[in-house]
Amino acid sequence: MSKVAPVPTQSKAPDGTVYEIPSDSAIAAGFEELRGNVEERRSQGLKIVVVQGLGFVGAAVAAVLAGARDSAGKPVFFVIGADLATPEAYWKVARINSGQFPVPSPDPALAELLGAAVATTGNLRAATHEEVYGLADVIVVDVPLDAAECVTEEGSEIRVRIAPFEKAIDVVGRRMRPDALVLLETTVPVGACEKIVLPLLTRLRQGRGIFEPPLLAHAYERVMPGPRYADSIRRFWRSYSGIDERSAAAARDFLQAFIDVDAFPAWRLPDTNSSELAKLLENSYRAVNIAFIQEWTLLAEKLEVNLFEVIESIRVRKGTHDNMRFPGFGVGGYCLTKDSLLAQWGADSLFHADVKLGMTLEALRINRAMPLHTLDLAAELSGGALSGKRVAVAGVSYLPEVADTRNTPSEILVDALAARQAEPLVHDPYVAVWPERPLVPMAASLEECLRNADGLILAVPHAAYRGLTAEAILQQGPRLAFVVDAQNVLSDDAARGLHSQGIRVAGVGKGHWRKRRYHE
Amino acid sequence: MSKVAPVPTQSKAPDGTVYEIPSDSAIAAGFEELRGNVEERRSQGLKIVVVQGLGFVGAAVAAVLAGARDSAGKPVFFVIGADLATPEAYWKVARINSGQFPVPSPDPALAELLGAAVATTGNLRAATHEEVYGLADVIVVDVPLDAAECVTEEGSEIRVRIAPFEKAIDVVGRRMRPDALVLLETTVPVGACEKIVLPLLTRLRQGRGIFEPPLLAHAYERVMPGPRYADSIRRFWRSYSGIDERSAAAARDFLQAFIDVDAFPAWRLPDTNSSELAKLLENSYRAVNIAFIQEWTLLAEKLEVNLFEVIESIRVRKGTHDNMRFPGFGVGGYCLTKDSLLAQWGADSLFHADVKLGMTLEALRINRAMPLHTLDLAAELSGGALSGKRVAVAGVSYLPEVADTRNTPSEILVDALAARQAEPLVHDPYVAVWPERPLVPMAASLEECLRNADGLILAVPHAAYRGLTAEAILQQGPRLAFVVDAQNVLSDDAARGLHSQGIRVAGVGKGHWRKRRYHE
Repeated sequence: MSKVAPVPTQSKAPDGTVYEIPSDSAIAAGFEELRGNVEERRSQGLKIVVVQGLGFVGAAVAAVLAGARDSAGKPVFFVIGADLATPEAYWKVARINSGQFPVPSPDPALAELLGAAVATTGNLRAATHEEVYGLADVIVVDVPLDAAECVTEEGSEIRVRIAPFEKAIDVVGRRMRPDALVLLETTVPVGACEKIVLPLLTRLRQGRGIFEPPLLAHAYERVMPGPRYADSIRRFWRSYSGIDERSAAAARDFLQAFIDVDAFPAWRLPDTNSSELAKLLENSYRAVNIAFIQEWTLLAEKLEVNLFEVIESIRVRKGTHDNMRFPGFGVGGYCLTKDSLLAQWGADSLFHADVKLGMTLEALRINRAMPLHTLDLAAELSGGALSGKRVAVAGVSYLPEVADTRNTPSEILVDALAARQAEPLVHDPYVAVWPERPLVPMAASLEECLRNADGLILAVPHAAYRGLTAEAILQQGPRLAFVVDAQNVLSDDAARGLHSQGIRVAGVGKGHWRKRRYHE
Repeated sequence: MSKVAPVPTQSKAPDGTVYEIPSDSAIAAGFEELRGNVEERRSQGLKIVVVQGLGFVGAAVAAVLAGARDSAGKPVFFVIGADLATPEAYWKVARINSGQFPVPSPDPALAELLGAAVATTGNLRAATHEEVYGLADVIVVDVPLDAAECVTEEGSEIRVRIAPFEKAIDVVGRRMRPDALVLLETTVPVGACEKIVLPLLTRLRQGRGIFEPPLLAHAYERVMPGPRYADSIRRFWRSYSGIDERSAAAARDFLQAFIDVDAFPAWRLPDTNSSELAKLLENSYRAVNIAFIQEWTLLAEKLEVNLFEVIESIRVRKGTHDNMRFPGFGVGGYCLTKDSLLAQWGADSLFHADVKLGMTLEALRINRAMPLHTLDLAAELSGGALSGKRVAVAGVSYLPEVADTRNTPSEILVDALAARQAEPLVHDPYVAVWPERPLVPMAASLEECLRNADGLILAVPHAAYRGLTAEAILQQGPRLAFVVDAQNVLSDDAARGLHSQGIRVAGVGKGHWRKRRYHE
């Protein structure tokens, strides 16, 4: 007797809300209704756009597309946000259809755009049925494409999860209208359009009797969750490329319908390899410059130099040195932690090119180790060992003022605290449930987090932490013996105040505190 | 019988001019005259400044100091440029005393300042007698401090030539007036002021019965030979620090007498370790970002991508990505090639700190290897081997429009060409004699250089090369079979023109030419 796994019926959002996943027949009925709706809107002159994948990029792109207006003030697009009827993904579909942006955002524009599109103009729906791709004039691909480096004693290996991406392209190829534009926003390995997507679409279309080449373009996003979330799509630079002239022209026409191209002209690159490489280079640049400062942070601390002051003095050199990074806690998010890997993997696996991005990949390793330096400072302040200590960790998002915890450096810190037999006490004003660490209890307030803590690590420069005085910290954390400020959160006054009360204080990149600690 | 080496009596400038080195008695007589001159000018209210070392920095600083005026339009300083009566250095002394700036400069301001100071206001002299340090109110140290990394199979070792620097400080300590300010502009290992200069000056002064601490400050220069050579001193940012409050105040007063501090306020750093580190970090930042692009240059070429276009498209992101570097030929000059080594050496030798600037030092290695990639492209275009080929190298200075050949990447290229049994034919419009490679004949014109050349490597983007058309290149070089453009010198038209005439063409960072070469 074989067992059949029960079909999952629920999907849980990060805030704990549970949504029922509809049955197949309900999904089919919903699609028929949507199909009718689409035909009506198409007859009114709207273009039909399907956004594939409703994560931090796709959900925001769908909202912005739905908010696009023509010169007469009418919606340009009818937008279908498509994702899977799975426990991991369905809650996003449900939430969009209820008129809510899936995740909390500090930019009210997205919630407004999405709410108006669902409730007022009725030009945005989310759906799970795969036949939706057959309705689209434009398919925007925003599915994730994961990569990681696995370092062992024998060396390191880059692992790219290409199969889910190919599966997403597969459904497009099987369903798309012959003349639809497929526009990739997903960050892909260099070479992906030419060597993965185009052959796959061509083969699937030929199987359907479609022999003309697809319209296929790449136009990478620069979405930045935060207070300018919506404008990072509609009012920011965009580069694009097509596999041929027709595709490039179609991409340009599409982009200029929702991006402010008067202020931010779209930049055409000559081929998809170039624009794929551009995205990876752009993010690698930031990752390398963060790693570079991390090296000098460790040096400055040994030399009892405050690297913040030094960098401030260098950044006066506008145009050449003013983007030098400051010391910090680590690198998180979905881009800087992996994009360099996609370049090396593409070179290896798609071009079989003998070239190594040695320094670039080393930078990613340095960045992954950054939180462990904060841990080392905590251990040093704690007298060498952290075993048995209760350590408050303030902040688990990877950026201030957002709820995004993907690849957060706090994950590395909290895991390492646990491995050293310390007890992490975690707080974040934006995160009630930590999706990647659901078993880590989140304190409801900083006060609750600090109440029994032996030490405090300030890991994210949330506004709620930036104003903290020595008094406020000590009142909430009466047992605190040490504070590590990994993000330049504490004012000099607060640090001095803590120090004067016998609390041991250190700041990442602030070697002068080391001097004070040992010599005052 | 022991032999005594004859005392050298001549000093030869890079342009071939020979100067007689004066006898000891003539030097002594010259000093007595200078001493009288100084006493008179001091009584007129001028401060006496000795600039120690008349290289690319010291000579320019001396000229700018001599040009400083008070609010009444009168000279502020009487300036003595001090260097050694040796074959290597004396020509600079002679040339300044004849009213000429020692090296050709594209900035006419320096020659004007220097000529006027020597001929009109009479407030600038160059001298070799070591007693000049005893005349100074301020001693500005601009002596070289060399460093290099020696890479062997067992590992790498950083070698710093600290002895000549200590010798320079030694003469200051033995001669300086008790209340003179010693201001270091030389780029030094981090820790040098506190751990080398201060102990040495203190000991020498105590030997002379001077027990109060010296006035000692560090204020690193950002001199850039080129069209804004003078303004890179008087109208640019300057950071400084002192070993104590008195020293910092004295340094500030001195700097604001010749720097436009209204537009570029001097930035005080809290200690000399901080300002020494700032200089090294600042230049390492550039070196790392050049190496980063070199890695991606090799990748882009394999992928047949034009990295220039890609980087142009990324640089629209002002404030974060607009200083991304472009592909190129290599890194030369006195700073970016060695300053990172001074940080690691200082950490190791002066602080005994267990910290490694691994990625930073790797960047210097990548940069040193850059010219060899250009060589590889030349070999590839030449059919694999360069043996027996006559290869024109256009440009040996390390920057366009300057005569400075220190650590030029052309040196690495020319040496490697010779090692591969090719014959380098070298031209530079600014370099008649190549000081570091005096045996390499310099062609008098590009035409002479190209006349018998089998191939051309464009190594420096001098204006004289940037305008070159395909016709001009082919007319001057009738035997040319290949051209490698290592500096984005050729226009697309020129490249296409050469290609259409059967010349094989490649550009560093321009993988799309590779595609054209093989497929057109």
